[in-house]
Amino acid sequence: MSSNRVEAFSDGVLAIIITIMVLELKVPHEASLEALGNLIPVFSSYVLSFLYVGIYWNNHHHLFHSTKRVSAVILWANLYLLFWLSLFPFFTAWMGENHLAPVPTAAYGAVLLMAAIAYYILQRAIIAHQGSGSILASALGSDWKGKLSPLGYISAIPLAFVSPWISGGIYAFMAAIWLIPDRRIARVLEKEVS
Amino acid sequence: MSSNRVEAFSDGVLAIIITIMVLELKVPHEASLEALGNLIPVFSSYVLSFLYVGIYWNNHHHLFHSTKRVSAVILWANLYLLFWLSLFPFFTAWMGENHLAPVPTAAYGAVLLMAAIAYYILQRAIIAHQGSGSILASALGSDWKGKLSPLGYISAIPLAFVSPWISGGIYAFMAAIWLIPDRRIARVLEKEVS
Amino acid sequence: MSSNRVEAFSDGVLAIIITIMVLELKVPHEASLEALGNLIPVFSSYVLSFLYVGIYWNNHHHLFHSTKRVSAVILWANLYLLFWLSLFPFFTAWMGENHLAPVPTAAYGAVLLMAAIAYYILQRAIIAHQGSGSILASALGSDWKGKLSPLGYISAIPLAFVSPWISGGIYAFMAAIWLIPDRRIARVLEKEVS
Amino acid sequence: MSSNRVEAFSDGVLAIIITIMVLELKVPHEASLEALGNLIPVFSSYVLSFLYVGIYWNNHHHLFHSTKRVSAVILWANLYLLFWLSLFPFFTAWMGENHLAPVPTAAYGAVLLMAAIAYYILQRAIIAHQGSGSILASALGSDWKGKLSPLGYISAIPLAFVSPWISGGIYAFMAAIWLIPDRRIARVLEKEVS
Repeated sequence: MSSNRVEAFSDGVLAIIITIMVLELKVPHEASLEALGNLIPVFSSYVLSFLYVGIYWNNHHHLFHSTKRVSAVILWANLYLLFWLSLFPFFTAWMGENHLAPVPTAAYGAVLLMAAIAYYILQRAIIAHQGSGSILASALGSDWKGKLSPLGYISAIPLAFVSPWISGGIYAFMAAIWLIPDRRIARVLEKEVS
Repeated sequence: MSSNRVEAFSDGVLAIIITIMVLELKVPHEASLEALGNLIPVFSSYVLSFLYVGIYWNNHHHLFHSTKRVSAVILWANLYLLFWLSLFPFFTAWMGENHLAPVPTAAYGAVLLMAAIAYYILQRAIIAHQGSGSILASALGSDWKGKLSPLGYISAIPLAFVSPWISGGIYAFMAAIWLIPDRRIARVLEKEVS
Repeated sequence: MSSNRVEAFSDGVLAIIITIMVLELKVPHEASLEALGNLIPVFSSYVLSFLYVGIYWNNHHHLFHSTKRVSAVILWANLYLLFWLSLFPFFTAWMGENHLAPVPTAAYGAVLLMAAIAYYILQRAIIAHQGSGSILASALGSDWKGKLSPLGYISAIPLAFVSPWISGGIYAFMAAIWLIPDRRIARVLEKEVS
Repeated sequence: MSSNRVEAFSDGVLAIIITIMVLELKVPHEASLEALGNLIPVFSSYVLSFLYVGIYWNNHHHLFHSTKRVSAVILWANLYLLFWLSLFPFFTAWMGENHLAPVPTAAYGAVLLMAAIAYYILQRAIIAHQGSGSILASALGSDWKGKLSPLGYISAIPLAFVSPWISGGIYAFMAAIWLIPDRRIARVLEKEVS
């Protein structure tokens, strides 16, 4: 089975997730700068989640770039990832509206963690499908980002009860290291071709 | 008429259905674990419906994989299926918010039933269009899943008034048997090619 | 400029319009059949608008099937059509929630009329772009449906103040005549090829 | 990396932005023309933002038409543009519901300005990627519209505190000059081919 329709469907779901988060930004009734200022925590969570969905879209793009055929397992691993990403708008709004209170901030980290695990499962499913000599496996290399991120989220969850700002800082930092584009897959693919 | 644009449009609608269901998850005002705990029935219905839309997308994918040309009848049978699937967010939220009360749980089963019937009609329309020697017809074989599911939903509707949990269990069980991927179509297609 | 991306964008917008209308169906707080029964006018408007968007998607599909290149005028005529279609969710909800009160029912007809005019403009823009010997022009023929529909909507608007049910009947009847698929374009295209 | 999936994802996000703005049009409870009349400022902001998203889609279409390969920088510059465009529904609703009060009208201008800057950054990223002899660079020419627009928004922001109607007029005027389709890129592309 070709990967085209999986990519198209995933693009659709990711495009909707990244956009409907804005519907959780409740339009204030007052026309003042203060009203807008009160929304700063909500806007900050929105920016953070926008970044995360953007990063997932970007990495998803790379992942399927090296995958021409998909199996039923890959299809369901992909849907499992989309499921956790689909919870971003809810937990983003919960954390933002409660101004980074401990429980919602920890819950946000738990969803980030589950999405990271789902992404890892999807990666393994693709590598298993490609068999030995998998382009993706050699492209990933040590995959230090993929290993560091879950550790970051796991530590951020209890730390939210010490200070939610530490957790928020960890989430932002993890996003920042992913923003540096993943050239690994691209590089190995180029080697394959040449 | 080529099936490409039908697939693209269906993918779009399914991607939106699966994602906007999350908008029915109302963000609680309290920042406590209890507030999140109260949402468990709502979350469970969400997970169930996410699974169902995922299964329909998956099966839809297989269905049109063996259909290169579409007729006006297929187009409208497809829209009829999308109509019933578009009601999932509403009935999912109604069942979840009322903690599986009998009427909403029965209504949810009725929508599952109508979607299953619509899917069956779409299947027959494609088979009729392909004529004798239809790839899809031979691929479906006995189609025991397609026949068992409506029976399950029909029995779950009255049982919701005995105990909604039985109905919920039936819905979950029916989703589970579909999760085992349908290799029938893929297998026959491979035979055709070889 | 190729028509591919215009079709993809229009498919996206139409898929969203047809799906978000369901978000206007407010989930009732009671878990009773009566609560569902009260929603019958809202559901009926939803069904009607779902049909109309389905018909527009279907016809749009045929229209661009005979159009490989698009001009800037076609692009904007297309966006103008999408604008009027984007108002369907709002006016559908307004008519449904007010149980077909005269003003919302007339307003719904006005939006249907504006969409029909926008579709006509788009058709003319494509025919003008194709020049003499336009495939679309000969395919449309007398275009009696395209001419009858606006007359229907124009008469339904004042009739809503006599009885909204007459107007509702006219809207349903107009949808019904479009449901009979438009084989004109397909037929002429086939002649061109053979 | 090919630009196809970037275009598809952007199309998806733009299609959703242009359509969900309609969800901010709150359906009035009264079935009277006055109730609809009260919505005129909200509708006007909707029309303005629909136009702007349409213009951005149109220009984005032209931009990537001359770009077959994309870099990581282009990908993120594109996401940065989509971020600012995703804020249109929020600020459109805020301005409309407050009947063009000074602060929301100025804020709307600030979002238009940020989107214009993001578009400019995306343009530069593509030109830098294409290197000397960039098709896009020669196609843009003096790019007077791209330079005039930010100046218009910058002046409209403080003017909103004098009279929001002046700012609204500037926003409408800037949209109008973009409506005249940008034939520059198309023209140069045609020269390249011939």
